[in-house]
Amino acid sequence: METEPARMTAAEASALIQAKKMSCEELVGSCLARVGARDPIVKAWLSMDPGHVIRRARELDKLPSKGPLHGIPWGVKDVIDTADYPTTQNSPIYDGLKMGRDAAAVAVVRGAGALIMGKTDTVEFASSGRKALTTNPYNAAHTPGGSSSGSGAAVGDFQVQYAFGTQTGGSHIRPASFNGIYGMKPSWNRVSREGLRMASPTLDTIGWYGRSVEDLALVAEVFRIGRDAAPVSVKGLRVGLCRSPVWPRIEPGGELALTTAAKRLADAGAIVEDLDLPDAFNGLDEAHATIVQHEGGVSFLPEYINAGPMLAADLRARVENTAQITAERLLAAYALADRCRPMLDSLFGPDLDVILTPSSRGEAPVGLHTTGEDVFNRMWTLLHAPNIGIPACFAPSGLPVGVTLIAGRLTDARLLAIAAACAPAIDQEVEARKRRLWPV
Amino acid sequence: METEPARMTAAEASALIQAKKMSCEELVGSCLARVGARDPIVKAWLSMDPGHVIRRARELDKLPSKGPLHGIPWGVKDVIDTADYPTTQNSPIYDGLKMGRDAAAVAVVRGAGALIMGKTDTVEFASSGRKALTTNPYNAAHTPGGSSSGSGAAVGDFQVQYAFGTQTGGSHIRPASFNGIYGMKPSWNRVSREGLRMASPTLDTIGWYGRSVEDLALVAEVFRIGRDAAPVSVKGLRVGLCRSPVWPRIEPGGELALTTAAKRLADAGAIVEDLDLPDAFNGLDEAHATIVQHEGGVSFLPEYINAGPMLAADLRARVENTAQITAERLLAAYALADRCRPMLDSLFGPDLDVILTPSSRGEAPVGLHTTGEDVFNRMWTLLHAPNIGIPACFAPSGLPVGVTLIAGRLTDARLLAIAAACAPAIDQEVEARKRRLWPV
Repeated sequence: METEPARMTAAEASALIQAKKMSCEELVGSCLARVGARDPIVKAWLSMDPGHVIRRARELDKLPSKGPLHGIPWGVKDVIDTADYPTTQNSPIYDGLKMGRDAAAVAVVRGAGALIMGKTDTVEFASSGRKALTTNPYNAAHTPGGSSSGSGAAVGDFQVQYAFGTQTGGSHIRPASFNGIYGMKPSWNRVSREGLRMASPTLDTIGWYGRSVEDLALVAEVFRIGRDAAPVSVKGLRVGLCRSPVWPRIEPGGELALTTAAKRLADAGAIVEDLDLPDAFNGLDEAHATIVQHEGGVSFLPEYINAGPMLAADLRARVENTAQITAERLLAAYALADRCRPMLDSLFGPDLDVILTPSSRGEAPVGLHTTGEDVFNRMWTLLHAPNIGIPACFAPSGLPVGVTLIAGRLTDARLLAIAAACAPAIDQEVEARKRRLWPV
Repeated sequence: METEPARMTAAEASALIQAKKMSCEELVGSCLARVGARDPIVKAWLSMDPGHVIRRARELDKLPSKGPLHGIPWGVKDVIDTADYPTTQNSPIYDGLKMGRDAAAVAVVRGAGALIMGKTDTVEFASSGRKALTTNPYNAAHTPGGSSSGSGAAVGDFQVQYAFGTQTGGSHIRPASFNGIYGMKPSWNRVSREGLRMASPTLDTIGWYGRSVEDLALVAEVFRIGRDAAPVSVKGLRVGLCRSPVWPRIEPGGELALTTAAKRLADAGAIVEDLDLPDAFNGLDEAHATIVQHEGGVSFLPEYINAGPMLAADLRARVENTAQITAERLLAAYALADRCRPMLDSLFGPDLDVILTPSSRGEAPVGLHTTGEDVFNRMWTLLHAPNIGIPACFAPSGLPVGVTLIAGRLTDARLLAIAAACAPAIDQEVEARKRRLWPV
């Protein structure tokens, strides 16, 4: 074998497993070796049992293939229940807690043959409190982003092919940008959130990380949202360059990623034009904040009552409604989002195939006391539209930065087809990322 | 003690416990005796450990009071996780499954001192498949309704003061009607659904049963939705009598309940006038069906993949989308609901305090092969408004029938105040219900 299995994309590894040219055990052994070498620095994992993982790989090697995910190693953000590992939410309140059943999303990929490697570190409750100990694979002095810190870093560092993340503001797409990986946030509720720690049912979304659009599509297929879209050509593709209402918050790295992606798409034949969003969208950021505050007050009431002092101050504040959010303000926030969602959908048509927008302000900031900011993601989460994060370039700092492609609600399959056409143009540093991180 | 503790309302029992005139152990002992006497007929429970319950009561007797719910026995519908009892969803797929943590709603009431008695029988997954074995306390040849079958029957039969139910169509309010009890379905997501089996995140709502509006309000207070509403007088209260777009489906028992409640309210000084809903509401029933089908397809994918043949045919059909629901149709259903919700809210004001509408077609039908129909509940569930079910009368069959009071979204506290004013007028058979069911 020329390439270490851990370096492969899921699609590459899957093709070898399906052809019986590689065993699940070989693949996961390579991933475990990578974890062993890198975990002291990257610290992506909260729990992993190599013996359990290898036994499971051997079982999968004896079974008929369950499909393209068969034997492919997965990380699971530790706010998502698994039957075989504790689900701690990175909170001392739930230290060591074992749930009896896989979360719905885990059950789906496990049922499709995925090999769950372990649980990845996360911001406490994927919301607020303890940060992950995880570092950025490209520079341990920087954050990998969050709250899906460990999932983003583990996939980015070639420790595992896939990982689940979650997004309420920008917790999935931002780590994709910071770790040089692909991330899909599907349309709202196209993936069941049962067994996920809820922070805001209007916003919470489970997504997955991979190393190519093809990787993302294999998972979407299992969730039955990846089918039936015709192939797309980048030539003539109408791309709306959307700086978004929060453009003043952009940093040089984020601007570089956006302009680089736009130029490369144009060079490949896409028609890239500036896109201005309807004025109504200007209120979505505040609406997002209102909904996070209110729904967080509902979601964290159990911990507030049963373990109040252990709960982060700003989660206690959501329960206590210190922001004094009234019913009127909450209903106005819901109504604005309800109005803007179809407006977003209707932008797509003869004049627009896809929106290109920043994934993050810039590259990963220094320090583990922050996970960066979600200003460029929040609006899209509230709009329930599918997002795909794609690596765009390295910033002068040497850290990767990505961009996001967005389409209308429930057009996940179409967005995947568009991303498959765009990614070869946008992402020209695939080999550079491998060289930077491999060998250790 | 003159009254057996099990017969008391929660408010009555709570007052005695707070005054130390009754112990938690005495209360729960009385409830367990009632369960022992009646369970062979009513079959409300899927799991209960009397020794565990008594030990917990003794612990609560040693603790300082945690508030009005301290020591009050609760039943939990078995689609809601509990740390101390299995959560089977009445499905052979999850037979005996123990979860590691209480669902959010259970954690809230347990944290407020509630004594969880056990898990109550339910329609499989609160959706479709196996029915509960539970019978109607008033006539074992009839259904107690569903899917919250055991919860409704256990509270109605004086086996437990409180129980959690859930509603996606009419699974909470209909059993309230069939079992002669009070039921509150709060505004959407005012109670966290984490740890609840999801069928449809747009619709699923956790509610609770009790024996008076005061009982319901004590729970609402713990969930922080029962506060701050001024007392209401029934005199001059503007009640909108809403037969709803599905009125042709009414049965004599349901019509009797509605007209009886309306007359009694008018006799008590309320201004009861017919209320016609906006025409747009006529499409809500179909929108509800579309959303149930689509979101059920997402929710039941894990079982479809991992235990397909054990899944009910119509849940498999949701996953397979045999109804051929397109993205356009789904988005149109969401859009209609988004448009109608503020329309409902805006009906309330100087001309309307509360809507009075049927809780069920009529009294509980014969047989356990059915749980009745949710035609009179579905629209209100989709509208996310708070509903309170109140017993209205006995039908000539000897079975109880209830009615529903409805207010605008997030006005749960106001609705409770209105219901407190209306219930003494509407519900004049409290003692008759006790006489009918007690002694055995």
